[in-house]
Amino acid sequence: MDFEIVTRDPSSSARTGLLLTPHGAVETPAFMPCASRGVIKACAPDEVASTGVQAVMCNAFHLLIRPGSEVIHQAGGLHEFMNWPGVVATDSGGFQVFSLAQPKSVTDEGVVLPSPLDGSEICLTPEVSIQVQNELGADMIMAFDDCTPYPCEYAEAAQSMERTLRWAQRSKAAHDNSAQALFGIVQGSVYADLRAESARATVELGFPGYAIGGVSVGETEAEMFAALEAALPELPEAAPRHLLGVGVPTQMIAAVKRGVDLFDCVLPTRNARHGLLYTWEGIIRINNARYREDSRPLSELCDCPACTQYNRAYLHHLFRLGETAAWRLLSLHNLRFFAQLMEQIREAIGTGKLEDLRAQVAAITEREVV
Amino acid sequence: MDFEIVTRDPSSSARTGLLLTPHGAVETPAFMPCASRGVIKACAPDEVASTGVQAVMCNAFHLLIRPGSEVIHQAGGLHEFMNWPGVVATDSGGFQVFSLAQPKSVTDEGVVLPSPLDGSEICLTPEVSIQVQNELGADMIMAFDDCTPYPCEYAEAAQSMERTLRWAQRSKAAHDNSAQALFGIVQGSVYADLRAESARATVELGFPGYAIGGVSVGETEAEMFAALEAALPELPEAAPRHLLGVGVPTQMIAAVKRGVDLFDCVLPTRNARHGLLYTWEGIIRINNARYREDSRPLSELCDCPACTQYNRAYLHHLFRLGETAAWRLLSLHNLRFFAQLMEQIREAIGTGKLEDLRAQVAAITEREVV
Repeated sequence: MDFEIVTRDPSSSARTGLLLTPHGAVETPAFMPCASRGVIKACAPDEVASTGVQAVMCNAFHLLIRPGSEVIHQAGGLHEFMNWPGVVATDSGGFQVFSLAQPKSVTDEGVVLPSPLDGSEICLTPEVSIQVQNELGADMIMAFDDCTPYPCEYAEAAQSMERTLRWAQRSKAAHDNSAQALFGIVQGSVYADLRAESARATVELGFPGYAIGGVSVGETEAEMFAALEAALPELPEAAPRHLLGVGVPTQMIAAVKRGVDLFDCVLPTRNARHGLLYTWEGIIRINNARYREDSRPLSELCDCPACTQYNRAYLHHLFRLGETAAWRLLSLHNLRFFAQLMEQIREAIGTGKLEDLRAQVAAITEREVV
Repeated sequence: MDFEIVTRDPSSSARTGLLLTPHGAVETPAFMPCASRGVIKACAPDEVASTGVQAVMCNAFHLLIRPGSEVIHQAGGLHEFMNWPGVVATDSGGFQVFSLAQPKSVTDEGVVLPSPLDGSEICLTPEVSIQVQNELGADMIMAFDDCTPYPCEYAEAAQSMERTLRWAQRSKAAHDNSAQALFGIVQGSVYADLRAESARATVELGFPGYAIGGVSVGETEAEMFAALEAALPELPEAAPRHLLGVGVPTQMIAAVKRGVDLFDCVLPTRNARHGLLYTWEGIIRINNARYREDSRPLSELCDCPACTQYNRAYLHHLFRLGETAAWRLLSLHNLRFFAQLMEQIREAIGTGKLEDLRAQVAAITEREVV
């Protein structure tokens, strides 16, 4: 992996860049939708690529469970398995241990947890996570981290952060695929000194890229930004920075201003399946009866399959039916909006208009289209 | 509507034809997938069109319930509402009264039944069904019929058939849209004399097309074919004949040999959602563990999006996840197979090879691909 900074924002720490991987380039700042189980829910990979998405985020834990990393390795890796023409990243499973499973034990060695599929015992360690990610063959992979819950006492946050550092070292030692870039993960909860220490020590271990984890877990926006402000200055300018699990448009712009390059989140596709659509004119809740006879497209400014071929009345009808065709069309729409949003962000960085864009995006994500 | 017979099979009553409607032509014999609620489940209309489907079958009862026929009328009719580029037919709701709802009363006047949506009382009469279908604006619409259950005593079948005749007359009188072709429906259960009488009396009323209903409701294949053999000779050669609710490939070929031109059925898409795929090499049950690492496409002979872009291992993975993206891809595959099957049937009629094709199709729908 190679990372080139292309332009710098005159009034913030934002930058545009080009991430070069064995499977093509990603223009940054970039948003990577979640294909946790090897698929963006309700959509086929070819359609996702056509919305302008350049990279997706899969998940080592989910894919270990099903279909098994050996099946994907056998198929030639995730790109081949999914027939995905772009870049792939995988998350290590650390966050899933924290958010999904109820671990039987968490020790310095690793985590023992029941398989969500059949209850059988899974032992996840840095070594296992990295081996799985090596087999999956993504372009960017993540160190196995101990994701700190929120709220969290200082002492506990410090312990968790230190464990993440030990696991980062073991992740790095276990990593055995030079075609993949291993990202170190910064933890430290909402404590500025812990975030800074985590960043410094992770940089000392040395990784080609850095991720900031343990955010968007219940803390306030101010706490999240403070954590970013403590960590980001400690990271090397030249390496890409990934903010894990953040996809709220205004939060992404705020993070970009602080120097973040990469994002991943289920938000646009989950919201779409719940009928919440983003447009440059405002928010649409397609279940609302006001759209029952509305013959306009979701947005006049969108060129996605939903907007170019179907109108609000038909999408409202499909959504009310619980039709999965609606989930697909609405997901593709939100993915297209996010791709357009990232284009706008990159353009605003080059022209110094990031704050104008933030204000515009704040307005359109707060008002409903009528 | 206009119907031209193009070729006749030398060794059976089969014929190929061209059905000309205000929304384009349909080559017959044709299969119309069911878009009962204004959508082919899991698929968007534009994708269905690209599989070679020329006409779809919607349902007056389902669309009356949701979104309401006035909404679709307001939108400019079903073609506009769905943005469907081809031909549309609607079924009258007679079969849904029989199969879905538990009517509160069935009298000569009509049927009173609870709405599946909110339990409110719906009164369905020939006049209501035709008014709804006039509003929906399909190219071909169906008379409101009394669908006879199976098994059924002779006397009951005779009464039901006679009621269908009275309703056919009222349907014809109520029909008020000259752009739509109203089909009369033949009933009579498994009784040859009733089927023949129903056909003769329906023809006497005079319709531009005829449908055969009350089949595929539990009777044997032999009983279904006998009913067809009793009814079809009584129908005018020059009018199109639609066999309602039949989609089993070998049964369609057997019906074509007896002179049927049109079919509709949920079979290909329902089977797809249950993981049963048709290919020219045999049947695939994609849930089967044998496909877990199978890097071949579903079929080498298919040009659908599932076959050209994804392999069995990936589709197996998506299907096991319960991913709706799988339902879509597999539905498009089966629709493409059915479009190819109807092409093969039309070609076999022209070249006198219908029996060879029937034998081939019987073989491939009985064996599993390994």
